[in-house]
Amino acid sequence: MKVAVKVKLKPSILDPQGKAVHQALQQLGFDAINGVRIGKFIELEVADSADPAERERQIEEATRKLLSNPVMEVFEIEAGEGESS
Amino acid sequence: MKVAVKVKLKPSILDPQGKAVHQALQQLGFDAINGVRIGKFIELEVADSADPAERERQIEEATRKLLSNPVMEVFEIEAGEGESS
Repeated sequence: MKVAVKVKLKPSILDPQGKAVHQALQQLGFDAINGVRIGKFIELEVADSADPAERERQIEEATRKLLSNPVMEVFEIEAGEGESS
Repeated sequence: MKVAVKVKLKPSILDPQGKAVHQALQQLGFDAINGVRIGKFIELEVADSADPAERERQIEEATRKLLSNPVMEVFEIEAGEGESS
C-alpha cells in the first residue's frame, strides 16, 4: 500500500528556495505566478499485512518525528492509493 | 488561487535520500514501512486575474521546464484549492 505525505513549511516561515524559484520564473516571463513555496512529497510503501491501527500509528509517528520538523513544518497524510506492490 | 505540483522520481531512478530515510526508520523500529521515496511538493500562487488557458499554459510550462527534471522525474499538477489570497 502506498501512503503519500505532504510536508509544507508553515505559512509564517520564510522560504528562500521558493523565493529563488519565483524570481527565476519572473525573469523568464511567467507573470501569472505570484509566489512559490517548496515542500516535500514523500511516498511510503507500507506493508499490507500490518494491523491497520498499528500501521497508521507508525505512519503518523514516523512523519511527526522523522519526516517533518514540527517547529517549521506542517504535514498531511493521504491515505493509500491502493497500488500495492 | 493555489496550485499544487507534485514532483516524483521516476520508478526506475534510485533514490538514495529515500533509502537513507528508510534505513533510519527501520533502525527506529518502524517495521510496517517497507520503502520511502522522496519528491517535491510545490505550491504555486497563481494570479486569479490571468486568463485561465494562459494560466494553465504557464503552470504546465514552468513545471516542465523549471520545477522538474523530465529525464528523472514525473509531475502531477493539482488544480487550485480555491484559497485565493
